[in-house]
Amino acid sequence: MSPSDNASAEVDPSRPSLEDAITNPGTVKINVQGAYIVDDQPPTPDSIPDGDGVHYERKDIRLPHHTSVVSHVAVDIGGSLAKLVYFTKELQSPQEGGRLNFMSFETERIDRCIDFIQQLKQDHERLNGSAPDELCVIATGGGAYKYYDRLKQTLNVDIMREEEMDCLITGLDFFINEIPNEVFSYSETEHMQFTEPRAGAYPYLLVNIGSGVSMIKVSGPNQFLRVGGTHLGGGTFWGILSLLTGATTFDDMLAMADRGDNSGVDMLVGDIYGMDYTKIGLKSTAIASSFGKVFKMKRAAERQAEDAPGEDTENASGAQFSPEDMSRSLLFAISNNIGQIAYLQSEKHGLKHIYFGGSFIRGHRQTMNTLSYAIKFWSKGEKEAYFLRHEGYLGAVGAFLKRQPQNWGRRNSLEDSSLSKQAREDLRQEIQNQQQK
Amino acid sequence: MSPSDNASAEVDPSRPSLEDAITNPGTVKINVQGAYIVDDQPPTPDSIPDGDGVHYERKDIRLPHHTSVVSHVAVDIGGSLAKLVYFTKELQSPQEGGRLNFMSFETERIDRCIDFIQQLKQDHERLNGSAPDELCVIATGGGAYKYYDRLKQTLNVDIMREEEMDCLITGLDFFINEIPNEVFSYSETEHMQFTEPRAGAYPYLLVNIGSGVSMIKVSGPNQFLRVGGTHLGGGTFWGILSLLTGATTFDDMLAMADRGDNSGVDMLVGDIYGMDYTKIGLKSTAIASSFGKVFKMKRAAERQAEDAPGEDTENASGAQFSPEDMSRSLLFAISNNIGQIAYLQSEKHGLKHIYFGGSFIRGHRQTMNTLSYAIKFWSKGEKEAYFLRHEGYLGAVGAFLKRQPQNWGRRNSLEDSSLSKQAREDLRQEIQNQQQK
Repeated sequence: MSPSDNASAEVDPSRPSLEDAITNPGTVKINVQGAYIVDDQPPTPDSIPDGDGVHYERKDIRLPHHTSVVSHVAVDIGGSLAKLVYFTKELQSPQEGGRLNFMSFETERIDRCIDFIQQLKQDHERLNGSAPDELCVIATGGGAYKYYDRLKQTLNVDIMREEEMDCLITGLDFFINEIPNEVFSYSETEHMQFTEPRAGAYPYLLVNIGSGVSMIKVSGPNQFLRVGGTHLGGGTFWGILSLLTGATTFDDMLAMADRGDNSGVDMLVGDIYGMDYTKIGLKSTAIASSFGKVFKMKRAAERQAEDAPGEDTENASGAQFSPEDMSRSLLFAISNNIGQIAYLQSEKHGLKHIYFGGSFIRGHRQTMNTLSYAIKFWSKGEKEAYFLRHEGYLGAVGAFLKRQPQNWGRRNSLEDSSLSKQAREDLRQEIQNQQQK
Repeated sequence: MSPSDNASAEVDPSRPSLEDAITNPGTVKINVQGAYIVDDQPPTPDSIPDGDGVHYERKDIRLPHHTSVVSHVAVDIGGSLAKLVYFTKELQSPQEGGRLNFMSFETERIDRCIDFIQQLKQDHERLNGSAPDELCVIATGGGAYKYYDRLKQTLNVDIMREEEMDCLITGLDFFINEIPNEVFSYSETEHMQFTEPRAGAYPYLLVNIGSGVSMIKVSGPNQFLRVGGTHLGGGTFWGILSLLTGATTFDDMLAMADRGDNSGVDMLVGDIYGMDYTKIGLKSTAIASSFGKVFKMKRAAERQAEDAPGEDTENASGAQFSPEDMSRSLLFAISNNIGQIAYLQSEKHGLKHIYFGGSFIRGHRQTMNTLSYAIKFWSKGEKEAYFLRHEGYLGAVGAFLKRQPQNWGRRNSLEDSSLSKQAREDLRQEIQNQQQK
């Protein structure tokens, strides 16, 4: 096994990024030059327990020029999911950098997440020796507070906490600025249309859909404000459907939604009018009330059962509503509602670009199509919705990027603003020396 | 029984309104002078079938100066409820005018509504003789289209259809302008604070919460535009709770919500953070995700059941969530969501006053408090939410007022603008003659 090349004095491609980190603090923390999403995804490593709330994403990002040791992992612990980002070297060919790995765990099974970090810590020590390169954990999200003691005691490592919104924005900026084939717009006809990485996409609205939803106005690097949100989010979808259907995983629910027909439970304009409501431009197929057909049909079935007792009364229990139809209805209702609120917030704050992130989306077509359509519909085509392939990992990647590799000599100086003038001068000098060699 | 006084040439208090109807068409159609809500409500008349989807409101409005015959009833047939408004004379003392009666029927039981109108028609004929004073029906809402043929064939009367939004605004303007102790603001501490009737409350936003929700910007009499809405409305509440709980009526669901504690199912900020999220001002008791606790608890219970098979596995089925808690959570989620969207729409359209109508509200404290609080919270106290005691009858009253009493000689001329110049002149002359007597 090759140790890290942190002792190397050779000029390597990480240097421009290092320079950048000094002149433009906060933008680059690891060497992301030439980063790309690996198309030919490797199988889930044997070491990773799959299933039962653990999910390995298989959307690695290769960092071909990052060759120094990374002695931290980052975890974003939300209400429903804990998202983990960690770096591994390309073991076959150590000079070729490494990759970012993405994994999620149900927060309910935080023990599994901690076990896995423990394993990463042991790997790290085996590969790099222990102190002073000991692995540390950057934690964000509410669980960084709730599980702080547990993480610290079980792992016996430094736990650094980073603010959730800050991490989301840092992560999103990284994806927008650096990663090709990451950000895309979506429509039913054209599916994914990737946008090129670009710097300075400000201002924009970030809509992060986790268990709940946060909407954050971003005016520039480190300039952001949570302007609103809604508590009708992924946790609502997950919670209500786990009560209404037999589904036990989020992915099962999304798969059911794919097969469903919402008109089985939703009250459509046509159900009320018997036709279009042309005066205000509502088609007969437009949804008037989500789940609005249920009560009516249940009542009718109950009455039927009363009139003919002894006959099949299964209908009265609600069994006539298929889990698929209910899943589709609820997915649409929640997505569309978020889309509308996002549009209205973007109007209020004069924002044209809306990025949707968070683990609720999961690259699911219906969700993205609904969100995208809502933005187009309400803005009359003036605004655009963007999605990301790593939509669930904005916070985790942001937290990961908050910490720079140890060989940069800036360990424990997490905030660039806290870098002393002297430290900056030392770094600048170091780069100059290297360039003169 | 006294017949109508439509032959009377005496000067009566209806005259100023008549004058008003000519000079200010569209504002007054029946004599509403001195109208008030009857405090000492009579018992539900014996003739009215109560229960099974039929509800007599017992919120009569006395019209002490309206003494002429009214030969129409109005019905607003929505997706879930049909709302009926009809006029009855004070039989004990015919010179003292009459009153407006308010009733609702589940649309599912539209047959009962039609039966009841049939009964009103027979009463009308008995009291006033038949043609040319035959009762006619003004219908609005989607059901005015869907059930048009059925109404017409069963009742064998004229059915006049009026546009839904138009009726809502006409009805709301009537309540705002004419009825004391009708419109109020609400807060947890001060409960109902009535506002005085006032003319010209424009511009305002009307948020009508029925099965679905419509939001209408009103700039002046007859000047309005549906600016948005949401399909997460009363039908959603009713539908989802009829699946999740044993409740069979809307009122049962509201009563359960009163007794519930939403923290039994909602994921709070404290559940994620273990504390307040002070950086963005979210208290630990703030809701992060509606129903967000459900999935987690179900999973934990399932796992427990797997670990200890044979033991009580009831918990795994969702039975640990009380219908009361779920009702409260969903009521809050839907009300708060509507409140937020209403605020954002009012911002977009520069509206300060927001009126909430529709049968979803039903004078329920938690609902009004949530809506009111949402408006105050988001607008930082700049905007005010108003409610109405007849909140479910805006459309029905509006439709009722679209038709003027027959003795005004304007039968079949529903739109004031369709009054010919000659007809106006005739009316003006008539008033002058009466005043000179």
